[in-house]
Formats: sequence, structure tokens, C-alpha cells
Amino acid sequence: MSERLVGIDVGGTKMLAVAVDRSRPTEVLAQHEVSTPSSAEGVIAELVALARRCGVEGHLGVGLAGLVDDGDVLRAAPNLQCMIDVPVRDAVARELDASVRIDNDATCALVAEMSSGIAQGVEDVVLVTLGTGIGGGVAIDGAVRRGAHGFAGEPGHMCIDPSGPLCVCGRRGCWERYASGAGLVWLAQQRGLDIAPDGQAITGERLVGLARARHDDALAVWADFAQWLARGLANLADVLDPELFVIGGGLVSVSDLYLDRTRQLFVDEVLGGRSRRRTRIEPAQSGPLAGAIGAALLH
Amino acid sequence: MSERLVGIDVGGTKMLAVAVDRSRPTEVLAQHEVSTPSSAEGVIAELVALARRCGVEGHLGVGLAGLVDDGDVLRAAPNLQCMIDVPVRDAVARELDASVRIDNDATCALVAEMSSGIAQGVEDVVLVTLGTGIGGGVAIDGAVRRGAHGFAGEPGHMCIDPSGPLCVCGRRGCWERYASGAGLVWLAQQRGLDIAPDGQAITGERLVGLARARHDDALAVWADFAQWLARGLANLADVLDPELFVIGGGLVSVSDLYLDRTRQLFVDEVLGGRSRRRTRIEPAQSGPLAGAIGAALLH
Repeated sequence: MSERLVGIDVGGTKMLAVAVDRSRPTEVLAQHEVSTPSSAEGVIAELVALARRCGVEGHLGVGLAGLVDDGDVLRAAPNLQCMIDVPVRDAVARELDASVRIDNDATCALVAEMSSGIAQGVEDVVLVTLGTGIGGGVAIDGAVRRGAHGFAGEPGHMCIDPSGPLCVCGRRGCWERYASGAGLVWLAQQRGLDIAPDGQAITGERLVGLARARHDDALAVWADFAQWLARGLANLADVLDPELFVIGGGLVSVSDLYLDRTRQLFVDEVLGGRSRRRTRIEPAQSGPLAGAIGAALLH
Repeated sequence: MSERLVGIDVGGTKMLAVAVDRSRPTEVLAQHEVSTPSSAEGVIAELVALARRCGVEGHLGVGLAGLVDDGDVLRAAPNLQCMIDVPVRDAVARELDASVRIDNDATCALVAEMSSGIAQGVEDVVLVTLGTGIGGGVAIDGAVRRGAHGFAGEPGHMCIDPSGPLCVCGRRGCWERYASGAGLVWLAQQRGLDIAPDGQAITGERLVGLARARHDDALAVWADFAQWLARGLANLADVLDPELFVIGGGLVSVSDLYLDRTRQLFVDEVLGGRSRRRTRIEPAQSGPLAGAIGAALLH
């Protein structure tokens, strides 16, 4: 029997909703996107409207970009401040007469990859999303692990240099200051590449274009990026020793610019790297819908 | 029915063996200590001799200071190089006609704390041993987790400053360069405290004595130590969100010099620290025998 599941991925700039069938979650039955409203009331109203447009039938899953506690409430979120401490689940459930689950957006992406992506059948896997910042999800012995209070899987804020650049979280030298979209721009600035050759301020997209045109400084920035990515993955491997790292988020679409180098450097960055079996580092397969599909599968 | 279990903790300088009864593992029935031989043959002969002196009855557990893979073989160990890649389990099992289990020494200490120490009944716990370096063990949802290849729980080699001091592992700025016995001496040197007031080179013990005598610079070194400890624990909490950190190893005996300050600083070092429920940070209870007792309990 088919079962229609609806999931909504709520980011800082847009909300992405899908309907899937539980037995074939990669086949998207419906898909809708809106800009993220700036108030909690607005977001709740859009969640209800999007769920209805996707034909919600009793179950809704929602992924939020931030720390979601074990009571399904967002507790910290630099890009979704209006939703902090808001009882979204209850408000939406009341309107829809549906059961609602809320989780971290990267954890949702991990659920999607384990269900029908690169992590199918893998017991120990860490997913790292490289977007504006870094998100993450952790599965150990075949199950997603959320920690004692629901906050596990935020590797982007591991301190990797206490005297490094200031982070949106208020601390210094978090991993996402280096190995993310924002980090990429900072790395370019460190190499004096503040301005692209066309006179515009440097951006991640311009660094992609310059690297494709074999621009030396841009290629050096991507090499730095690969190094910082390898460093953080090695830290995670020292602690968790997964079989597989899955790289998701917006920057996965240009993984040809850094991933092979990251794999090589990882061996030297991780403890005993030359005497341990290889940890695979692979791009996510579920694409930009991963968060929404995984949210749908939370039930 | 009583069941006699024997465990041996093999460190870089000494081997510590105990016999316990499974139903009352804190009551030590026998205890023996020898210096660690410098050859693999010597260590294997001592494991056999110690196990016999402890009255081994079919089961022996051994904790080794290093990366033990899921085939019970040590693969990397700065302080126990002679044992790397040596099939200890099979050699000892043959001599004793016993079933032998090998694991990382800090993982053994975690097993002891979960069985009869501060971590009894705690589902999500990370143990960190502060000795010459830093060791660790991870339990999630009530079970010790060893990762896909047996190498999980080595937080001492998380990179916390890529331009930091050189580590015994060959990398730079590993956490154990700061928040360990060796790190403490390095922190003192950074503050110009190379020489104690009695004219002797600074050591961890001298830093304890000076702090007890309210020596300003020594107190500042312990404050630095508390900060670095908090930083690394925060990194672990960002990834694992445990309910409890257990601090073990030699430096736990002077935890009054740093642990309260570490608890305070941790709140600011961890992501969302002021909006998440408190993670407890507590000293281990099993004392210097924890590794050997935990090894005995591996079966």
C-alpha cells in the first residue's frame, strides 16, 4: 500500500517541500518552494500551506537549520533566529491534524542518504554539509544518533584554531570558518584574492569559474579548502572512525575541485592514517532535495 | 556463581594486572604490577605470567595504550611501538588456553566506569583520560562504540591548532599538546615558567606544588589548562552531545586545580551553550585500576 509522506526543509532563505511515497522516496510526487518568511508566525503559516499543497496525509516532517532539541524545539540557529524556542510542532500539528516531527536539516539529509543514497547499508557514517556554514549528521551501528539532548552532529563549530577568524556563533576558528562557502571567501582573502579579475568582489561562484579557467591563485584557494576539509574530517575520524563520510550541501556540486585532494590529505591528517583501513569520502547522491526527502522519512 | 575475570592494563612504562569477580568488579581479588618489557616477546611472556599469577580461569582481557583494530591488533601506538602489528591475542590465548580480548586502554577504563563507576546507568558518555597524552572512549545509547574499524575514541589527536606545537604523532596542534601532562609543561613554558623556583626544570608535579602554594604563574598555567580542556570537550560535545564527560587518567587526582573552571568555560565554548541543558563533567571513580578492571570486564 502506498503511503504519502510530506517533508519540508526550512533554510535561512527558502523553504522546500516535497511529497514522496515511503516505498520509493526518490520519486518525488510533488515539490514546492517559497522564500522563508522573517517571522515565526509567517514560517508556521507557510509550513501549513506547503504541507496542504503537497497533499499531507497525517504525517509531516520538518528539517530546521539549527540545533533542534529532543523535544523538537529549535534552540540555537544563526540563520533562523525567529524560530528559536518556538513550539512549531504543536502549532503546525494543530492546524493540520497531523503528526509532526522536527529535526536538524543535515540530520534529515543523512536519513535520505541512508534510505536511498550513497549511505545505504552503511552502519557507521558521518554526513557533512558544506553550504554557507557546515552542518552534520552522525549514524553509528546503523542508527542516526542525536546525543543526550538532540544536539549531536554539529561539527561545523569544532574549534580548529582558537585564534582564528570570528564565527557567527561568537567563537573563533570554528571549522566552518574555513571549509564552507563563507570559509572559501575568507581563504581567498587570505591569499589577497579579495577582488576577482573582473573587478567584482570575490564569491564562491567566482572562485569556481576562476578555478575552471585554471587561475593559479584560485586553484591555490581550492587547495587550501581541501586541506581544511581534510583536517576537520580527520578530527571526526579520530573520534568516530566511520566507514564513510558523505559530503553534502551546495558545494558538493563542485566536488571535482577539492574532493580527490581531500581524500589524499585525509590519510596524513588522521591518527595512524597509513596503518588503518581507508575511510571512504563520497559526495551525497540525493541532491538539493535531500533535506526535504529525509524530513519526510522521519516518521 | 562467582566467575573470576583477569584484566591487564599495558602502558608504556608498566603493566598492571587484576583479578575480579564479575558480580563485584570493584573488589579486587589479586593485583600485580611489573615494568613493561621493551620487546613484543617480553610483553607476551609477562601477559602470560601475570595472568597465571592472577589465577586466570578461561578469560583474559588486555588493554593496550594505542589504536586497537577490530581484529584485536594494535595498529598505532607512540608509547608501545614494539607491539604494533603483533598478534598478541593468539599468542597469549595459545599459552593460556584461555579466550583473550584486546582493546584500547581508555575504552577499558570507560567499561569500568559504566559498570561500577560514575557512568553507571548513563547512556551517552565520553571518557577522556588525561595522562602523558589524552586517551578516550565513547558510549552512545548505552553501548561502547568502537567505530567501523575499532579506532573510535581518540580525541587527543583532534587538531585544535594547525600551527601549534609538534605532536608525537607527527602532526601539529593536537589537543593532547595542551590538555595533558605533557601539555601542562608546554603551557608553563609558554608563560616563561621553564624552571621552578627551586632551580629544577618544570614538571607536572612541580606545577601542582606551586599551585597549592598559590604561585601566580603556576595558577595561570592551570587556568590555561582548564581553558584548553574545555575547548576540546566542547568540540566533542558539538559532535556527540553526551550527557556526561568522565575525566580519568593521572591528572584526575588534582582535578580540584582545574575542573570547576573547565565546567564554567565549557558553557561558552560549546555551540548554544547557554540554551542547551548542562552536560556534566565529572572525575572518574575507579582510580588507577580502571583500565585493568575494565579489561577484565571485556568478556
